[in-house]
Formats: sequence, structure tokens, C-alpha cells
Amino acid sequence: LLTPRFALPVALLCASALAAVTVAARQSAPVAASRQNPALIEDLVYANRILANQGVVDGFGHVSVRDDKNPSHFLMSSSMAPALVTTKDILEYDLEGAPIDAAGRAVYLERFIHAAIYRARPDVKAIVHSHSPAVIPFGVTGTILRPVFHMGAFLGEGAPIFEIRDAVSGPTDMLISDNKLGDALAHALGGHAVILLRGHGSTAVGNSIQQVVFRAFYTEVNAKLQAEAMAVGKVNFLTPEEAAKASKNLDTLAARPWELWKAQIGKIK
Amino acid sequence: LLTPRFALPVALLCASALAAVTVAARQSAPVAASRQNPALIEDLVYANRILANQGVVDGFGHVSVRDDKNPSHFLMSSSMAPALVTTKDILEYDLEGAPIDAAGRAVYLERFIHAAIYRARPDVKAIVHSHSPAVIPFGVTGTILRPVFHMGAFLGEGAPIFEIRDAVSGPTDMLISDNKLGDALAHALGGHAVILLRGHGSTAVGNSIQQVVFRAFYTEVNAKLQAEAMAVGKVNFLTPEEAAKASKNLDTLAARPWELWKAQIGKIK
Amino acid sequence: LLTPRFALPVALLCASALAAVTVAARQSAPVAASRQNPALIEDLVYANRILANQGVVDGFGHVSVRDDKNPSHFLMSSSMAPALVTTKDILEYDLEGAPIDAAGRAVYLERFIHAAIYRARPDVKAIVHSHSPAVIPFGVTGTILRPVFHMGAFLGEGAPIFEIRDAVSGPTDMLISDNKLGDALAHALGGHAVILLRGHGSTAVGNSIQQVVFRAFYTEVNAKLQAEAMAVGKVNFLTPEEAAKASKNLDTLAARPWELWKAQIGKIK
Amino acid sequence: LLTPRFALPVALLCASALAAVTVAARQSAPVAASRQNPALIEDLVYANRILANQGVVDGFGHVSVRDDKNPSHFLMSSSMAPALVTTKDILEYDLEGAPIDAAGRAVYLERFIHAAIYRARPDVKAIVHSHSPAVIPFGVTGTILRPVFHMGAFLGEGAPIFEIRDAVSGPTDMLISDNKLGDALAHALGGHAVILLRGHGSTAVGNSIQQVVFRAFYTEVNAKLQAEAMAVGKVNFLTPEEAAKASKNLDTLAARPWELWKAQIGKIK
Repeated sequence: LLTPRFALPVALLCASALAAVTVAARQSAPVAASRQNPALIEDLVYANRILANQGVVDGFGHVSVRDDKNPSHFLMSSSMAPALVTTKDILEYDLEGAPIDAAGRAVYLERFIHAAIYRARPDVKAIVHSHSPAVIPFGVTGTILRPVFHMGAFLGEGAPIFEIRDAVSGPTDMLISDNKLGDALAHALGGHAVILLRGHGSTAVGNSIQQVVFRAFYTEVNAKLQAEAMAVGKVNFLTPEEAAKASKNLDTLAARPWELWKAQIGKIK
Repeated sequence: LLTPRFALPVALLCASALAAVTVAARQSAPVAASRQNPALIEDLVYANRILANQGVVDGFGHVSVRDDKNPSHFLMSSSMAPALVTTKDILEYDLEGAPIDAAGRAVYLERFIHAAIYRARPDVKAIVHSHSPAVIPFGVTGTILRPVFHMGAFLGEGAPIFEIRDAVSGPTDMLISDNKLGDALAHALGGHAVILLRGHGSTAVGNSIQQVVFRAFYTEVNAKLQAEAMAVGKVNFLTPEEAAKASKNLDTLAARPWELWKAQIGKIK
Repeated sequence: LLTPRFALPVALLCASALAAVTVAARQSAPVAASRQNPALIEDLVYANRILANQGVVDGFGHVSVRDDKNPSHFLMSSSMAPALVTTKDILEYDLEGAPIDAAGRAVYLERFIHAAIYRARPDVKAIVHSHSPAVIPFGVTGTILRPVFHMGAFLGEGAPIFEIRDAVSGPTDMLISDNKLGDALAHALGGHAVILLRGHGSTAVGNSIQQVVFRAFYTEVNAKLQAEAMAVGKVNFLTPEEAAKASKNLDTLAARPWELWKAQIGKIK
Repeated sequence: LLTPRFALPVALLCASALAAVTVAARQSAPVAASRQNPALIEDLVYANRILANQGVVDGFGHVSVRDDKNPSHFLMSSSMAPALVTTKDILEYDLEGAPIDAAGRAVYLERFIHAAIYRARPDVKAIVHSHSPAVIPFGVTGTILRPVFHMGAFLGEGAPIFEIRDAVSGPTDMLISDNKLGDALAHALGGHAVILLRGHGSTAVGNSIQQVVFRAFYTEVNAKLQAEAMAVGKVNFLTPEEAAKASKNLDTLAARPWELWKAQIGKIK
């Protein structure tokens, strides 16, 4: 189902936005405050590589984690394909989406997705934004993504869909390229685990890197299965009560595929 | 069709259930009684690796074999992703689903699927439980999975679908987490080779490891082909008589793909 | 589209049929008369490996070539998964499907597919029988497979479908397990390049190994595209005249993908 | 989605057309005028390999680049599978599609696709012709390919479909095998980025190798998503205004996946 080599890019770089942050020309390794916590950075690098390896992201998409030493900062790579991220590429950002020290690196235009959700949701510790393919048809047809099976139980009563046309007047380039759009997205997300962006992609949140990677992966799987099931007949989804009970179990499970996915990547640098 | 890197997890770990069996803290290799039969354990490890490699299981799912020295015991790995299982991870269980010596290892919550079927079906020597993706749409739409071609002939007149809502009152977490639910599942399975679990996955049984792996694989293939055929037109399934005759032939065939699948894995440890 | 690791098996071994040919118990290398032409045998081994690598066959399926030194004989491997075939596994058969010297090896039950077509079609030099997945839905729904694009032009005005129920009275095991069934299949094939077998698979013929591998591969591709196109709208197929003209061009083209496919396999033994 | 090992061939070799250009028998390396610009040739070789690796081309298909030293010439490999192209295989052509020095190599019959578009569109610097699979159903059903999400924004208000039956009287072999057909195709392309060829494939154009590879890849992705979305419900496409704004952003983005795709290939020769 998930053919690894591609999902769908997202973080479209805006030249002007980049100009503001790529002051320094040198390409030295940035110094993240959380460099004191190398385990967190290593997990973040694995998250990048795993999401690429599993087909949730392709050349585009990004994953972040809230700084466990400083909850008003978060960590995310500089602007590059997730499959190529190493520990030296991790930058630190404040909750307005500004890099603390970009060290001359380009940053993702859509870093405001992350900043806005961390501002709005203190419970959220990690975020994935992707264009994973099976999810796109749901956003553009207004079809609600719901749990087809227990592995998608975190979808609860269904994931909301963000319509950027409702957030600003006039046509946009579809991107969450500033804090105002980020706030509108975070508002639409509410307390959900996943939100779809019409004509763009989706965003998953979690209380850890492992949980958010699990959710991003099974959001894609559930979407594919739901579309296939809809073609076969009328779908008997998990009830909200079944979803709530199954979702609690999922919270204890993120470690198992995580170990497998790490083993498939091998050692990182 | 079967993209190897994932199918759909199943054995959701229940913390309380685990507590009961992970008494010892050490992570030494358990001692299975059938360690006297290393060939059986090696085949079981291959079954784990093959099912992962062929996309029938992903980070979740499990396969067991009845102990050929002691038919009231069965063998299955400790709780982990099937792709990572080695001979040292194989545990022995009694027919109530209790591990004989877990040696500090966590065990699959859904071991009761295996225990209950071995209790009810003396002819069954091996069992696979998976969330293989193409099968899910059939369970959630109540569409009967039937043999589209001779390789799915073991589906006979169609695989039954287990509805957990019929087995207990009130909402569940969808899992077969005790012997009562296991018995209800085994009852629904009856004399069939395969049963679907609505909103969860499926379970295949066989008279050997090779046969059950063959069946789990071609259940997934048949499901994908049946869904595609239903989209093209009215399906002319194998008649029950054709299925019965073709199924007898299949019983002589499990060795051929098994050799191929083993060769694709290479040496195991 | 074609995920390499599987297509759909075919040559179901019939124990009694095997008994007749596996007289010798030794597993030595058989001596094919065409061993004087090692290039032909090498191409046949590549054909086995390529068909497996491209997902046209999985653990089952087989490919043969008419002996260029003796047109009343043909070459085909002993009974095994095509991906594992080496030059030492090639056997020689007469046009009744009897092995000249099986050297103790098991032979494919459905060798009569090959024998019957070589008897009926002197122009045919090579044959592939497979269960390639996208083709199955057409056979079981009675939907005619027609050229969606120029690469499927050899399908002409559409591939015929063989219904085994019309060839014998009473239910069968679906297999072409004797010369009478082989003759019925060859009759249904007529002058076509490809025939579908309801609930079973398909068979392609060609004037060379390269051409038949090309046709088996693009039969699968065309089937997948035709099913997808039918889901999108009314399909504007190649006219018979366009198919005839495009098909002539295809005859000059089999060398290009053949070189690529061989390179993907590397050296064989 | 994009399974790498195949897309759909295109450049059908016409023996008579080839005869005209393969005068010399020797297979030495041709001397391209742009050999003074090895970076351009290296990028062209990467483009061949990337398109094969990403499943946009299989044994067939071709990519060209306008000579940056001489805009009335263009570079393209000799007739071979794109996955096997090396720097030594790059030939130089004039704008009539004639090779400057074929050095005994066979050339693509459909080189006139490239020649005609370079003649008609001075802004075009690179061209991809492929049979990438998800696009075929749109051409044969007359369904307009439109941007489902921002990554397909270059499709604008929809890609035109070329019907070869409108360009010449009487049936054809479907190929763009001379300059007259090339001109008809270029006329139908107009100012668009992509054109579909009914029963054949598609052609993308760009202002650089990176851009045209990006467009060829995301044309395939968008086609797959659009077909899937149409099966789920009524599709809310990007408006022409959204597509225009998003497309501008895409123009700044081709470098990111390009770096990833090159890294997946590794060093070339």
C-alpha cells in the first residue's frame, strides 16, 4: 500500500520568507539548545528517516518535537528532504516559528504549522506535516476520515478538514505561510489528533515522537482502507466508544513498530 | 500488490494482562519444550519473517504452531514485530494461553486467539493472525470473501465474519483479549480455513506452518483481486465443487512458494 | 503497479501425474538436447527470473521455448518457483508434454498448456503461463481485455477467455492437467497472442522468448490500466487498425526492455 | 503508489527511420557539442536515471535538454532504456530532430516530439516524454487532468489531450514519428506545461531539467490522486487563481526533491 519512495511534499519554500532567516551565508552546524539531550535529537532524525522510508513523506514534509528542556521552543530540521536529515541539520525554533540560530540554513516556510499548534496545545509534544497520498482524496472531496479499524482509532469521530478559503479572503498559494494561517489551522484542529488540509495534505499531533509517527503512518493506512472499503460497500466504522477504548490501547503500542522501523533504517549519524 | 513493508498490526498489548506474565525482569532466552525440535522453531521463525516480507503483517500480527511433541502446548514469539523474531524469542504456551516460561518477556495480548482455536480444532496445527490490508474492507462492509481463482480455493463457500459486538455486551477495544472472546471467535470460525474480524483483521488456520502461511498470503491476494473484480463487473466465483477440488491440489503445493520465500529471507538466526 | 514479489501461482502439482515422471530418485542435472545451444537456455533462465522480478509470476507460473534445433521438442524448467531457476533446471519435453529425461525431477502439472499450443501453432516459439494479478478480474467478470495504449497493441481486437466448464462435463480443479484440456485451450486461443483462463490466469505466446516476455509483461500493465480507465470513464480503445499498425512496431521493440530487465538481474548461473 | 520498476515505454523504433540515421556501424561514443558543458550532460543522465527510479519511465520514455551553448540544438540519449543511460550515450540533435553525429547509434523514433516543441516554444529548455501509468486512463477517457493539490499546480486549468486521429487521415501506429505530427502535438500543447496523448502517454515541458523532472513526477502523482478522489466523491480542485499562485512557489522548489533523487541514485558515470 504505502510505496515508500514517495508521498507528497509540503513545505514550499517562499523566497521572501527565506530571505529573512538565511542571514548568515555559512553552512555550519546549528547549535540547538537541546543538544544537551542527544536522545531527543536522535529520535527526531529517526522520525524523519522513518516517515520517508514508510512513504508518509517524499521530498517534502516535516516533523518536529517540542524541546523537553524548554517547552516554549521546538526542534525541526532545516529545509531539506526528510530522508537526508542528520543530527547536524536540527534547528531550534521559538513558538513564533523563528529559528534561534539558523546558522545560515534555509528553514521550512510552513514552520508556522508547528509553532501555532504548540502555542495552542500544551499537550502536544510532536507534530508531523505531510502530503501522504491516500489522505488527499478525503480533503478534496469533503469525505470524513474515520476509523475503519482499531489501528486508526485515534481518528475518533472523524478528522476535521481545514479549508484555507475560509481563513483568508482571496486566493492563496495553499500554504500555511504565516502565524495567522497557523492559528486558523490550530483552531480547526481543536482537540483532534489529525487534521486534513484541502488540496494540500494533513497534520498529525501526538504526545511523543513515537506516537505522532505512529499516527501519521496509520492515518495513511486508514485512508487507503477507507477508500477501498467505500468502493466495496457501506462501511461499518468503529463507534466513538469503540474508538475511544481502542485508542487507549494504541497509546501503549507505539514502541513496537518504532523498534521495527528503526531497525529498517539502521544506524544514523 | 502486496507492498512488503506493511500490513496491519494486531496484538495490542494490554498493560494489565502483561503484568501477569512478565514477572521475571531478566531478558534471558526462554526455554521452549520443543527446543528438542529445532526444525519446528526454525520454520516458525521463517514464518514470522516471510509474513513480514510479503506484507501480510507489519509491526504487528503473529503466527503460532502447535507443539508437535505436546499437542496441548503451542509455540509463538514473545511480543515483538514479526520481522525481528529470532529463534531465541520463541515462547511456549498452554491451551489457556498462559506462557510456560516467559523468561521476563512480554507476551501478545491476543494469544487467546491461538489458544482458543487450538482447543476447539484438533486438526489445526498452525495459526496466523494479521491485519493484512486488502481483507479489512470485506470485514467492515460485510462482503463475503470468496475464491476468485484457484489459489484462493481454501476459502470454500466464503469466509465467515466475526462481529465482536455480538460476543459481548457494550463497546470493546476490538481485541480478542481473553479466553471468552477467543471461544466466541473459534465458534464463529467453525470448520473454516479463514475468518475475518470486523474492524480488526483476519485469522487463518492450517495443518502445518507452510499451509497456514500459504493461506494467509493468498487470502490477502484473493481479497485484492475480488475487490478489483467487483469494480469491473459481476464476479463468477469458483463453485463450491470447483473450490473443493482445487483446494485439494493446493494442499500439495505449499512447499513451492515456501522454498522461494525462504530463499528471499536467507539464513536466519 | 507491478509489485514484483508476487503474481499468482499456477502449476499445481498433481501427485499422481508426478508419480509417472519422477521415476528416478536422483536429483542430477538433466541433459537437454538443446544443451548444444546454451544461449537459448540462458535466455530461458533469464525469462524465468525477469518474469518473477517484474511481478508477472510469483512462486508459480512457467515459461517455455520451442527447441530451435528440434521444433517437435520444447524446453522448460522442472517444477519450481521461476525466481530460483538456473540453467541446470531446464528440462526437454516432447509435444505430448512428456519429459525426455526428467533426471528424477518433478515436472509442472500444467505442461500440457505448452505442449498443446506448440502442437497447434507452428508459429509459436515461446509461451508464458502466469496468474499475473491485474488480469484475473477480466477473466472472472467476462470483461474483454483490449489495447488501452500502443504497448498493449498485440491484444488486437481483444483476448479470448477460456471457460473450463465448457471443455469438460462436471466440476474441475481449474487446471489444464491433460492433453484434452490443453487442446481445448489451444482451440480457444486460435490465432491470438494472449488468452485468459477464467478463475485461473492467462497465457501469452510469441515468436521468441523476448517477445513473449514483453507480451506477458504488457498484458499485465494493460489490464491494470484498462481497469483504472473503466473506473474513470468510457474508454476509447485503439481501433483494430491502430492496434495492427502499433503491433508491428512492438515487434521491433522487445530488445530494449529485455536489455534493461537482464541488467536488473545481473549474471545468472 | 509509483512502483519504480515500470511505467510505460514509448519510443517505438521504426526500422526504416532508424536505417536513415544509423549509417555508421561503429558503436563509439558520440561527440556532443555541449560536451564543453559536462554539468548539463550529467544532469541529463541523472534525469534519465531518476525518471526510471521513480517509475515515470520503464524500458521506454526519453528526456531531453536544450543545448545551453546553442539553443537551436538539443541533447538526448541514443535509443535505449533510460535506466541504462550514461554520459557516453548522449547525442546532439538539431531542431529538425536530426542527430549531428549519431556515431552509429540508433536514435529514438519519437525525437520529433522534442524537436517540434523546441521549435515552437523558445521558453522550453527541457522535455520529458513518458507512458507513466496513472496518466493513461485520463487520455483514453477524455477526462481532464487538473490540480488536485498544490504539487500539481502547474497543471493550471487542465492539461490538453492530443488526439492523433485529428492530426492525420487514416489509422496510425500512434507514434509521433515525423515533424508533421510533432508540429500537431506542439500546436495542441500551446502554452501548457503538460499534454496527454490519447492511447499513448504524456509529455511535460519545463524551463530546466529539474523543473521538467519535477513536473513529470507530480503529473503522475496528481493523476493517481485525481482518479482516487473521483472514486470517493466530487473533487474540489484548485481554482485557476490558487493554481497560479501555488505554481509560482513550485518553481522555487524543484531543487529539494532533485537532491533527494540524486542521492538515491548515487554517483553516475
